[in-house]
Amino acid sequence: MDGITLTPLKQILHPKGDIYHAMKKSDDSFFGFGEAYFSTIKFGVIKAWKYHKRMTMNLVVPEGTIRFVMYDERKDSSTKGMFQDESLSRSNYCRLTVPPKVWLGFQGMSPEIAILLNIASIPHDPKEIVNKDIDKIPFNWD
Amino acid sequence: MDGITLTPLKQILHPKGDIYHAMKKSDDSFFGFGEAYFSTIKFGVIKAWKYHKRMTMNLVVPEGTIRFVMYDERKDSSTKGMFQDESLSRSNYCRLTVPPKVWLGFQGMSPEIAILLNIASIPHDPKEIVNKDIDKIPFNWD
Repeated sequence: MDGITLTPLKQILHPKGDIYHAMKKSDDSFFGFGEAYFSTIKFGVIKAWKYHKRMTMNLVVPEGTIRFVMYDERKDSSTKGMFQDESLSRSNYCRLTVPPKVWLGFQGMSPEIAILLNIASIPHDPKEIVNKDIDKIPFNWD
Repeated sequence: MDGITLTPLKQILHPKGDIYHAMKKSDDSFFGFGEAYFSTIKFGVIKAWKYHKRMTMNLVVPEGTIRFVMYDERKDSSTKGMFQDESLSRSNYCRLTVPPKVWLGFQGMSPEIAILLNIASIPHDPKEIVNKDIDKIPFNWD
């Protein structure tokens, strides 16, 4: 989908504990640091849909598995009307960059708790967030 | 200890999954964004000692429990020769800010894997890191 990038991240494995990269300021998908926060999501639960007017999200999953579904409703996008479906975990350890004006939903896919880090380009601001009920964008989550 | 801060962070609990704050650019303990990365540490394991010449670390523990021990060897510090010992987890959910030139070690305290996020003021640079064997700074880890 136009403007969405999936960047494989380095994992440095060590017997005492590992290092997992998340983001460097020199990364192409870095659009400034506004805030970093975690979200957790339970097995099977879906949080959808959310849209940011200005925030670029950089999403990394250090624990568990989370499925992200994006829907493109941008007027001038070459991928208007398309969905993109990505599952992130330590086994598929990537950073998902979601530009503003793309609808995002996510689903917990692991019996253990799943944790998401968002390195957001701007601080949280309820005025730039739009929510839509899950059934307002039809998608088969099963 | 001089220059070390512990900042309680907000947890927004929700039946579908929670939100845990980590850092905003407006926070007093934000000294710039260089890199964000995760470290994991196994139960009982100790990683010590490490010292950064230039990096300010902002440490948050979204999963498990990690004990952090800091040792102050800074020449002009009012707390020279002192140790500080802090355990972070979701039950004691705080951000630990560690300025440059303080020795840091950490220990996994939870049977489940423990995860640490470091929001570092500069990108990783091996030239600004000094390592010391664990027995070179005597501390009772038991």
